Amino acid sequence: MTSGAARSARGTERRAEILRAALEVIAERGYRGASLAAVAERVALTPQGLLHHFPTKEALLVAVLAERDQWDAVPGTGWPLDLLGQLVEYNAMRPGIVQTFSALLGESVTEGHPAREFFTERYEAVRANMTQVLRTEYGERLPSGLTPERAAPLLVAVMDGLQYQWLLAPESVDMPAAFRDFLTLLGEG
Amino acid sequence: MTSGAARSARGTERRAEILRAALEVIAERGYRGASLAAVAERVALTPQGLLHHFPTKEALLVAVLAERDQWDAVPGTGWPLDLLGQLVEYNAMRPGIVQTFSALLGESVTEGHPAREFFTERYEAVRANMTQVLRTEYGERLPSGLTPERAAPLLVAVMDGLQYQWLLAPESVDMPAAFRDFLTLLGEG
Repeated sequence: MTSGAARSARGTERRAEILRAALEVIAERGYRGASLAAVAERVALTPQGLLHHFPTKEALLVAVLAERDQWDAVPGTGWPLDLLGQLVEYNAMRPGIVQTFSALLGESVTEGHPAREFFTERYEAVRANMTQVLRTEYGERLPSGLTPERAAPLLVAVMDGLQYQWLLAPESVDMPAAFRDFLTLLGEG
Repeated sequence: MTSGAARSARGTERRAEILRAALEVIAERGYRGASLAAVAERVALTPQGLLHHFPTKEALLVAVLAERDQWDAVPGTGWPLDLLGQLVEYNAMRPGIVQTFSALLGESVTEGHPAREFFTERYEAVRANMTQVLRTEYGERLPSGLTPERAAPLLVAVMDGLQYQWLLAPESVDMPAAFRDFLTLLGEG
């Protein structure tokens, strides 16, 4: 390994360590508590040292969400639709990251927000993935007559919209049960 | 009219005037451009004078959203479900207010945000209203077998979730058409 490659490998490792720490801080303290200072402390960096890797809080949080997407990714045609219900159940056990996602998504629709491009590209990719999942499950037409392309934005919208209702009132909104109701609705027609 | 009542009537009128001005500023400049200073200028108040009516930008924007809810309200059992499709079409013509709503909803799920209580109460009321609308349309069971109570959070989630996708990519997401697809889905089973 050249010294340049070694330096770059160390940088990648350091970055992964920072993202894990940020995820922990988010889980424990939520979106507002996820300050650069709190994350820096956990990885024994100075705030200045952390800024070298992530110049702003938004940049760090977007990197955390991108990393989560990688882990949660629905790999093309591979997933059965039913596993999405399990993903929603899993999300209901990690309110910190769902809160961070939902807060950043909200901010991203304002003019010139640093997370706007991430979310715009993410949603294009997620709609394409969900289209594939629906096609694998139902072929070219769902029982209702909708094409997978037209059902995909609805599937994504229900997941996101339920997250807001659940974050605001976790006692009254059973997010996983509501999402399963939607899957049932999709499968009938 | 006592002088106290006259003062209070003038205050109410002034407040309504400020809310109309804020709605105009939101429509023209979006969420970030909707500063207290911009609104104050439009109603010929000093920023200090405006603070007398609304102490923060969030308080002003929440009041604008509450006012919009009053105008858009689905009065109990009165509305047919189909009119919701028209409401979504109308929303697609006013991106500024939809953006403001979506941005504030996003922020409201964070700890101690000033709009949190407004949104928590709003969603409880909106779910109850939508339950009524669905009951008027379908009785105690939708064609899919879902009760109106269980379908209502899905209806609300689709409306909100589609707004984010549409705000991020208005060219690729046809919000009113997608929402009509969902209404079709609800009506089948």
